[in-house]
Amino acid sequence: MQTLQVALGDRSYPIYIGSQLLGQRALYEPHIKGKQVLIVTNTTVAPLYLDVVKQALVGHWQVDEVILPDGEAYKTLDTLNLIFDALLSKQHNRTTTLIALGGGVIGDMTGFAAAAYQRGVNFIQVPTTLLSQVDSSVGGKTAVNHPLGKNMIGAFHQPQCVIADTHTLTTLPPRELSAGIAEVIKYGLICDAPFYQWLQDNMSSLMAGEQSALVYAIERSCHDKALIVAQDETESGVRATLNLGHTFGHAIEAHQGYGEWLHGEAVATGMLMAADLCARMGKLRAEQVAALRSLLLQANLPVVGPSDMTVDDYLSRMQVDKKVLDGRIRLVLLSAIGESFVSSDVPLALLQETLTAADALGLFH
Amino acid sequence: MQTLQVALGDRSYPIYIGSQLLGQRALYEPHIKGKQVLIVTNTTVAPLYLDVVKQALVGHWQVDEVILPDGEAYKTLDTLNLIFDALLSKQHNRTTTLIALGGGVIGDMTGFAAAAYQRGVNFIQVPTTLLSQVDSSVGGKTAVNHPLGKNMIGAFHQPQCVIADTHTLTTLPPRELSAGIAEVIKYGLICDAPFYQWLQDNMSSLMAGEQSALVYAIERSCHDKALIVAQDETESGVRATLNLGHTFGHAIEAHQGYGEWLHGEAVATGMLMAADLCARMGKLRAEQVAALRSLLLQANLPVVGPSDMTVDDYLSRMQVDKKVLDGRIRLVLLSAIGESFVSSDVPLALLQETLTAADALGLFH
Repeated sequence: MQTLQVALGDRSYPIYIGSQLLGQRALYEPHIKGKQVLIVTNTTVAPLYLDVVKQALVGHWQVDEVILPDGEAYKTLDTLNLIFDALLSKQHNRTTTLIALGGGVIGDMTGFAAAAYQRGVNFIQVPTTLLSQVDSSVGGKTAVNHPLGKNMIGAFHQPQCVIADTHTLTTLPPRELSAGIAEVIKYGLICDAPFYQWLQDNMSSLMAGEQSALVYAIERSCHDKALIVAQDETESGVRATLNLGHTFGHAIEAHQGYGEWLHGEAVATGMLMAADLCARMGKLRAEQVAALRSLLLQANLPVVGPSDMTVDDYLSRMQVDKKVLDGRIRLVLLSAIGESFVSSDVPLALLQETLTAADALGLFH
Repeated sequence: MQTLQVALGDRSYPIYIGSQLLGQRALYEPHIKGKQVLIVTNTTVAPLYLDVVKQALVGHWQVDEVILPDGEAYKTLDTLNLIFDALLSKQHNRTTTLIALGGGVIGDMTGFAAAAYQRGVNFIQVPTTLLSQVDSSVGGKTAVNHPLGKNMIGAFHQPQCVIADTHTLTTLPPRELSAGIAEVIKYGLICDAPFYQWLQDNMSSLMAGEQSALVYAIERSCHDKALIVAQDETESGVRATLNLGHTFGHAIEAHQGYGEWLHGEAVATGMLMAADLCARMGKLRAEQVAALRSLLLQANLPVVGPSDMTVDDYLSRMQVDKKVLDGRIRLVLLSAIGESFVSSDVPLALLQETLTAADALGLFH
């Protein structure tokens, strides 16, 4: 087992990475302060892993559970309220600890429920997808969606610890593994050129589910993200670079209705759009964009947006994205592979070119 | 106009207290950072004061509004969502400023909406009731209710400033003025014996709505609360004394259904119950309890709980109160007039005596 420390002063917390960690009570014990625990999971994960976690905890704490419907479509205030219903009907007090057992949606909702319940209680992340292990369980961002925008309602709330059990990836659908790899690629692109090179060399191992490759990729991604988050906990500066591809990606997700595309899939296509825009701005070479496209294809990720989505569809969706400050579109761009920055000076004409001319250039098909 | 500074490090903010402040743009201006403003108010306050506030702001910012139904019964996640609907449909970004124009319910909901929208935006409190001017607009506690408990879902989120316009009290129903006075009395009881004496000497002036008396009472209450909040922003210690009477009061409100009793009315009765319990514990003299009862009656406040409420009704409601830690009831108690403390060692038998024997002692009728 590897342990990584996320340095955030008195809100620092460890990330445990390894196989078969779910059932180890010793990992939970130092991070549960009160006498009550609520496990929050969903209908897909519960049959696989709920019993293992419960067995580790019962007899030591009051262990309750709530099983939510599975999917991004349920990442809403209404579903959030089911967590509050469970907490209150079981009389959980402000020393309770919530345990998020599932993917990013479960992590985001459980984290926000923990942030808001009685104005803040503790929680532990037990991410069971690659995406949530490398991304949404690190950094304290929690939220639910609104029909008019993704992650529009939420809080910054740090977990007590993260338990990333790589064994859970054996039951992950291949499409979700790919979606997680999209975020892994993102770390290479924004801040870690050697890791990007490693990914180009080892993508087939990752796709084959080789354990050692997965452990390395998770560790390196968490390490990269932890460094960025530690510099900028509330996303006022460098942390925004973690949103590479997300503004495009959110537009795709919103247009399709949340849940149609996986988040990582939308981000993959969004990253390629961002890279294409950077090439048009003279910051990347065309062959670097083509290499990224190849890497995404190797990971079975989509490299073209929904066929019915127009330039205006993109632009109108991007206007309500929360990275928009005072009406100007802010985007994360690459100055090189492994170097990123945030810009509000994106030439609209080039952005429109990226959104319209992709076909003609053959970049997206 | 008086200005009071609430000292909270980089989240410090001023409270402006005076007459006819609502329409003064200069008070808002330093506290609005972006280009967008959303005024949140309700159907009662909007016809009285919305235009004055809008006039002060239009032409300088994009000014939108949302008018919520009035009353504690609407302090819910569903109503909260109307604020998010307004923010998103008007494309407010993360530099927006929310303005809470109304009483405690509007302040609590607007504050929580500001805490959660895009994980945190700015807001300004413009409290229009005595209760919200002396209590809920100071200290950063925001929340909505859940059917199983009051203020169970919320956040700590400080406003940019508070504009307490005493002129708005001229349109306040007498019952709400009394409810505000209950919280004013609370400050005397928990930490300010000289102020408690002043209240005993000047209650008739306050009840007559004398402007100078009201301004003094608001200033002194805000001053007392600001001192306590500055010591303990997240309610881990001394701040809990602000909940004198609240555990009893919340039980009454929950039993009656939120909105039947005003919060201040429930707190008034709850403070008398707490004082009675203290007398039974040998910490107050019976005549001090009687004097408090007289003061509350002078302020037209209820001194007896709902007639159909049994001891078990109280106890079961008090179990889910968020001041309950690990199953033990924690109560705020008085060691003297003007001195309070929090205790988990409340003898259950004496508590039951307070709840049952009040009639026989003639304290509550």
